[in-house]
Amino acid sequence: MEATYRALCKHGYAELTMQDIAEESTKSKGTLHYHFEGKGDLLKSFLEYLLDRFEERTQTVPGETPAERLHEFLDELLTPSDDDSAEEFRTAILEIKAQAPYNEAYQDQLSEFDSALHDRIAELVADGLESGEFRADIDPDEVADFLVTLFHGAQTRAAAVDRPPERTLAYVHDYIDETLCLESTERNGAALEADTGVEE
Amino acid sequence: MEATYRALCKHGYAELTMQDIAEESTKSKGTLHYHFEGKGDLLKSFLEYLLDRFEERTQTVPGETPAERLHEFLDELLTPSDDDSAEEFRTAILEIKAQAPYNEAYQDQLSEFDSALHDRIAELVADGLESGEFRADIDPDEVADFLVTLFHGAQTRAAAVDRPPERTLAYVHDYIDETLCLESTERNGAALEADTGVEE
Repeated sequence: MEATYRALCKHGYAELTMQDIAEESTKSKGTLHYHFEGKGDLLKSFLEYLLDRFEERTQTVPGETPAERLHEFLDELLTPSDDDSAEEFRTAILEIKAQAPYNEAYQDQLSEFDSALHDRIAELVADGLESGEFRADIDPDEVADFLVTLFHGAQTRAAAVDRPPERTLAYVHDYIDETLCLESTERNGAALEADTGVEE
Repeated sequence: MEATYRALCKHGYAELTMQDIAEESTKSKGTLHYHFEGKGDLLKSFLEYLLDRFEERTQTVPGETPAERLHEFLDELLTPSDDDSAEEFRTAILEIKAQAPYNEAYQDQLSEFDSALHDRIAELVADGLESGEFRADIDPDEVADFLVTLFHGAQTRAAAVDRPPERTLAYVHDYIDETLCLESTERNGAALEADTGVEE
């Protein structure tokens, strides 16, 4: 899976061959063909692997309050900190998204990822509602759907027209602070026992 | 160009050949090769043609007020009314976006389209500021950048995970009414001589 990641970053999706993946790994092309029917089958497993890794890594998000955790989560999503090949990888994933209408297995895997992302964001928003940090009239499902769409847009524009995702990130931070969070004065009233770490 | 459109919708980008395009047109494959170096060159011209058509068609947007025109513009953008093949075409364009990092001519054309879209939205927002229909503290450039990103996200999610763009459209309509527009009471005060067509 690590070899698939490296080969995808190096060659992109369209040009990728089983040989390219074998060259990045300690396995021969023959061994890869023994385990996977072909590139499509291997990439389906790769998408499963990405989903597992995503779910593992997002089980705990650092931050004192739900809003801080939401900031942190979207930071890491839009500008991954541990990834030298973020740009190449984003492009390869966009190629796979564009193939999804022709490939049901890709569409299924991408849909699972999309749902997992949606659910993780909705949970963080629901936590913020419960703690009284977020406005009572927001809907976690709608907020999550909106943020997932914006995330896809930032990724697509980064690849298609080379627009830095940092610009979307700045928008998202404002959105959390200004649209989701209660004003600090409102919050002081709303937060009964919850420690919301209000600062000005 | 019409033939290219039909061939793209039928075959997608990755599988598209000059032969497919010739079959949709009255020209032979030889004639196409006389005019275009190959598929990449023809598609570059096709993207230019799309931009011209976009600029022509959006010179006048129907609607009484800037907010109505912005609603209408984004409606037409996210759910084109005159297009039976919207889904197939969206997928083909997404494939081209995913190729942009490998193809400078595509990236240049897509960037021009992105800018044209941004500028058209920013103009409509600036009109709404001038007429007093929109809140004075909004920035046309930021609003346009945000809406263009959301548009790309809706297109990508529609192809990748089959999520209907109508959901983003509903969000966008709320955003215009609730975030951009002044409340009708505020507007009555703010709009001095401008006829803003307030109802409530």
